[in-house]
Amino acid sequence: MQQVSSEQILFTRGVPAAEALPGRLLSECFQAVLEGPDAKVVLQYGHNGGYLPLRRLIAEQYNVAADQVLVGNGSLHLQDLLAGLLVKNGDVVFVEQPSYDRAIKTFRRRGAKVLGIPLKGDGIDLAALEQAIAKQRPVFLYIIPDFQNPAGVTTSAAKRQALVDLAQRYGFWLIEDVPYRTLRYTGKSLPLLRDLNAERVITVSSYSKLISPALRVGYLVGPLDLVKKLTKLAEETILAPVLPTQATVVEFHKRGYFDSNLESLKQLYAPRLQAIITALKLHLPSIPFAEPEGGFFVSITLPEQSRVSNLLNRAKEHGLVLTDGRDFFADPLDGSVEDRTGERFIRLPFCALTPAQIQEGVKRLAGIINE
Amino acid sequence: MQQVSSEQILFTRGVPAAEALPGRLLSECFQAVLEGPDAKVVLQYGHNGGYLPLRRLIAEQYNVAADQVLVGNGSLHLQDLLAGLLVKNGDVVFVEQPSYDRAIKTFRRRGAKVLGIPLKGDGIDLAALEQAIAKQRPVFLYIIPDFQNPAGVTTSAAKRQALVDLAQRYGFWLIEDVPYRTLRYTGKSLPLLRDLNAERVITVSSYSKLISPALRVGYLVGPLDLVKKLTKLAEETILAPVLPTQATVVEFHKRGYFDSNLESLKQLYAPRLQAIITALKLHLPSIPFAEPEGGFFVSITLPEQSRVSNLLNRAKEHGLVLTDGRDFFADPLDGSVEDRTGERFIRLPFCALTPAQIQEGVKRLAGIINE
Repeated sequence: MQQVSSEQILFTRGVPAAEALPGRLLSECFQAVLEGPDAKVVLQYGHNGGYLPLRRLIAEQYNVAADQVLVGNGSLHLQDLLAGLLVKNGDVVFVEQPSYDRAIKTFRRRGAKVLGIPLKGDGIDLAALEQAIAKQRPVFLYIIPDFQNPAGVTTSAAKRQALVDLAQRYGFWLIEDVPYRTLRYTGKSLPLLRDLNAERVITVSSYSKLISPALRVGYLVGPLDLVKKLTKLAEETILAPVLPTQATVVEFHKRGYFDSNLESLKQLYAPRLQAIITALKLHLPSIPFAEPEGGFFVSITLPEQSRVSNLLNRAKEHGLVLTDGRDFFADPLDGSVEDRTGERFIRLPFCALTPAQIQEGVKRLAGIINE
Repeated sequence: MQQVSSEQILFTRGVPAAEALPGRLLSECFQAVLEGPDAKVVLQYGHNGGYLPLRRLIAEQYNVAADQVLVGNGSLHLQDLLAGLLVKNGDVVFVEQPSYDRAIKTFRRRGAKVLGIPLKGDGIDLAALEQAIAKQRPVFLYIIPDFQNPAGVTTSAAKRQALVDLAQRYGFWLIEDVPYRTLRYTGKSLPLLRDLNAERVITVSSYSKLISPALRVGYLVGPLDLVKKLTKLAEETILAPVLPTQATVVEFHKRGYFDSNLESLKQLYAPRLQAIITALKLHLPSIPFAEPEGGFFVSITLPEQSRVSNLLNRAKEHGLVLTDGRDFFADPLDGSVEDRTGERFIRLPFCALTPAQIQEGVKRLAGIINE
């Protein structure tokens, strides 16, 4: 087994493993694109809303029209545009609690009051959601239904149906962010929210975890009217898309590389997920956690009596880098009582670490927790 | 000579000529980047603020530190970020009148009141600018000092000095947008505004006109504090840069392609500028215009008594596509009197047309004007 005892172990950002980045295949695809029949198109202004062949490819996958697809510079860019279009100053939006830290910040910067609805092992707490709706109608609820970032939780089929029913009844948008969805290592996929009610759902995803983050190719699928408005806003803010990268994604599919690469990713990441589940059960047997069937993340919440002060610094002293759990927690539901669960929340991204690093990392984590 | 009499001639957007897009050279550079030693870096998250070797390259050109450079997805993206950071709702910003239509719209969308200061043949009208400053202090003045879009005008050396003096005295920012600056076909470059006062000037430029628009590689150079804040805002809105394209721009320089490509562009565009000057003097001898020494645009303003109603449609009937001149005109200086110069303003981008198309286009234009 690889020697890892002295090196620093980074349980921080959810990034793909370096060995999973398909440089040579992408190089081939860029070459085919830039020396192919569409080269002059791909190097010029145009295709606002995204390179049309890519919009068509995505449209086919989601069974929608091409103009229901907007391709942007990564999915955070699209979330920023969505919030820019939908949120008026002081509007309320809901997120799962915990949720993706950058989405929370983006919605806030666009003027939203962001409320977190507790997340359980099978998805959002529906009773808490209904209570929150009764108090104030959100513009949208942002959720990550598959292998959630940061918790690793997948929303159950029953909760998916309940969510679209609530969105329909109370007239709010559901933004489902599904960048990890196809990275399923075991079990079966549940329906997308949009499969249950396409009129109330905006689906956001990207190729960052499936090909390469630095291509910054994300996309959004939604009702035609909304996508038209967003496309106009995108044109007004970035003028035109980065076409060579988008055309390269199309070429990557055409050559069959997308499917073979996805298979390689699963083969690389599945043992890493298994390694972290095994290590948590071994080293932290008293802490329950949701076992994901895919994605990038497992998370644990320390018991209430745990010593959390100075946790990140103590971890660092033991060669372990953690993200501050509080970043994943939005405003407390009730403004008067501060929810301090975030202090005890630890996200453990496992894809960019080897099984040996994962084992060592969890062992160190257990040492710190049990100090 | 090429037959052009029946085809439609597009005097619309300022785009590079298709034959000027270096597909094969870029293909080579992408390959070198994606199969080179930095491939794993260039395909991963990171380098927020822009690919560091590119920031260093630009920093060297502008004689600043690398962290005074922010690389974004095209210069409009950077203008949007700048306006997002600097403009509070209701703030006033000044632009030249006429100015780049998308910049005007961007500043407005970010909440600014955008006032146009008349542009003369040697740059902005300084007396009008001082009058406007006396009434209300702008957050910034946005100008395109070299081969202005849409007018083709270059700001004189004396006016450059006067502008930085005013900015210093009254405490506003100067945003100088210089995407055409190096496309000089005759004459000598004047100093950048930042060469005269680096503390008050934010320089924005891009590789859209010099390599390819669809790479969407734009950059901004400014004081360290401001660039730090903008870099944070960029990270919050797009997370990370598109690194393969930015690394390709570095490779394009390393291989000497940037210089040779710039030389080719000048050789291609210089005769086109000459053709449009000649054609305007021949077919519209009574209309004076500023003769540019570079860039993409010549413009004319029709005499006050001209028939402008339905101009664009009449042009189209004669196989000529024009942009609505009013788009380049911001709010009138005095809210009570509408400035209607925009109706008589015609921008003529010449780079993407052959000399034969230019001659035919100007002939048709003269026919419509003299109808």
